[in-house]
Amino acid sequence: MTETTLTISELTERVREIFERSGLTPLHAGALARVIVAGERDACKSHGIYRIEGCLRTVKAGKVSPDAEPDVATDDTAIVRVDAKGGFSVAAFEMGVPALAERTQKLGMAAMVINDCTHFSALWPEIEMLTERNLVGMAMCPSYASVAPTGGTEALFGTNPFAFGWPRPGNDPYVFDFATSVAARGEIELHRRAGDQLPEGWAVDADGNPTTDPQAALDGAMLPFGGHKGSAISAMIELMAGVMIGDLTSPESLAKLGMTTLSPSHGELILAFDPARFAAGRAGDPMARAETLFDAITGQGARLPSQRRFAARKKAQADGVTLNADEMAMLERLKAEGLNAV
Amino acid sequence: MTETTLTISELTERVREIFERSGLTPLHAGALARVIVAGERDACKSHGIYRIEGCLRTVKAGKVSPDAEPDVATDDTAIVRVDAKGGFSVAAFEMGVPALAERTQKLGMAAMVINDCTHFSALWPEIEMLTERNLVGMAMCPSYASVAPTGGTEALFGTNPFAFGWPRPGNDPYVFDFATSVAARGEIELHRRAGDQLPEGWAVDADGNPTTDPQAALDGAMLPFGGHKGSAISAMIELMAGVMIGDLTSPESLAKLGMTTLSPSHGELILAFDPARFAAGRAGDPMARAETLFDAITGQGARLPSQRRFAARKKAQADGVTLNADEMAMLERLKAEGLNAV
Repeated sequence: MTETTLTISELTERVREIFERSGLTPLHAGALARVIVAGERDACKSHGIYRIEGCLRTVKAGKVSPDAEPDVATDDTAIVRVDAKGGFSVAAFEMGVPALAERTQKLGMAAMVINDCTHFSALWPEIEMLTERNLVGMAMCPSYASVAPTGGTEALFGTNPFAFGWPRPGNDPYVFDFATSVAARGEIELHRRAGDQLPEGWAVDADGNPTTDPQAALDGAMLPFGGHKGSAISAMIELMAGVMIGDLTSPESLAKLGMTTLSPSHGELILAFDPARFAAGRAGDPMARAETLFDAITGQGARLPSQRRFAARKKAQADGVTLNADEMAMLERLKAEGLNAV
Repeated sequence: MTETTLTISELTERVREIFERSGLTPLHAGALARVIVAGERDACKSHGIYRIEGCLRTVKAGKVSPDAEPDVATDDTAIVRVDAKGGFSVAAFEMGVPALAERTQKLGMAAMVINDCTHFSALWPEIEMLTERNLVGMAMCPSYASVAPTGGTEALFGTNPFAFGWPRPGNDPYVFDFATSVAARGEIELHRRAGDQLPEGWAVDADGNPTTDPQAALDGAMLPFGGHKGSAISAMIELMAGVMIGDLTSPESLAKLGMTTLSPSHGELILAFDPARFAAGRAGDPMARAETLFDAITGQGARLPSQRRFAARKKAQADGVTLNADEMAMLERLKAEGLNAV
């Protein structure tokens, strides 16, 4: 199959153009293009250009505001509130970062609450915006009901991603970002598109019975990772990043959206910590001590998370991003037809 | 076998007396007795009276200060620092709670850092001290190197407990507290004492090969729960509750202690959140909305965490705690001989 290689900035420009032609403001078109191309660049295909169509479908359905102007509010607490005003979360997050960093450096820790956003992106691009500032980050959000609690049979939790990052000045950060379901919904969708069966233990069908059929899994419920422990963490995310921040839980998000083919609407919780503040007055440099831990992990043959992403990123930065003919055709079609294509 | 039933306060008094006779100050003897009896009361035997001997061994070995006076320091940040001064963590935590609650109510969220403590207790008693104040709590700490990272073969991480609590006024809180290893070390020790084999997948032996023998597991390494995701969370706990707070990581704690039969020395990180602050200005009461989520979990046959503990607690509060003859003999022996018994 014919392949096309684009530089990261060329691909970003193409994706940005698709969004602008579909009526998104430059604020959102730019932010969405950056995060989607970051996924493609890092060979994280489940959050790459295949997501463009879902974003456009959500715009077309009137479920997300294409021109929302997020509002960032701070006070003397540790909580930075970003009202996304019904727009995509990505621009809202970017706009809140300076305030979050300022509060974190002042207080040692702070939270960014994003309310009323449509969320579809991975959390690691956000986490990396914190580690770039030498902050430790933790992020979580609901999605929409698609995961049964351990011991249950019905979709209730979202895939509820949980992400964490530790800065490593001069190196790629320590970052993990995973669904608290056994697999991300995007992975099940990719299995469905490829016609592949799922591994055992990923999901139950609509009757609550185990299944390896991706469509049956999408119609039924996925399962949490790690049994009751993963299920408990997923519930924690509903509570902290849904209920506590006064935004939708995953079942509420599904009820509001009414379907699972659009990007869900809910909030997000991001916590930031300043290791320099926390370690102040204690022996040892936390950056150097963390490297000792990382060396002990890799020294016994285990891997740090996200290394495949970082390797893909270096390759993409040097050689560009290669897309196949179907992917190029999709980009052309979306550019030409905009919302009419979805 | 003859059994003896004691009221919770009778058992607490006996345990307190053992610690006082062994040279602990009333501050520590009382705090240790409360948390150990809480474990026994809740049928959480791995954190019950069997822990007394380990505490006394640690005192006898000179690895913990029996008369430390913890120091609580606050400033205008969100960080409350408690210097345990080489004593047990339990009294240090209790002394820090009022300041943590005050900072959390003022700033929306705050952290308690406990440094230089000897830690042996479960985290749920601490979490429950926060939920009693209508705060959301998250707690984590290293332990000592006993768990291999996923993909590795050598003990590096601790069992690194992770705990969370959500207040439910008028009801038992939503609380989970679990080791990020497949099993808690105490569970493996209980298997060893009972002569039982471990389930598959809990551990590797000293050569890095899978084992079901408890002693081989204790000599080798346990495995994280949930594969690479649990391993990543365990690393996060080393980073946040070890490196970031300027205290020992699990491998450092093991190196300092030199053995695994005493309670480890390290720090702890507790995060608290005020849901009333976070939800302020948003629609819906977070306490009521959380109940809707809990109903949806239990309504499909899944369980909330800690329910077995709470049921045991109610029974113990009504009927007392029943100990067998061996347990009663242990209490008598420890009371009579103190540090000479261990």
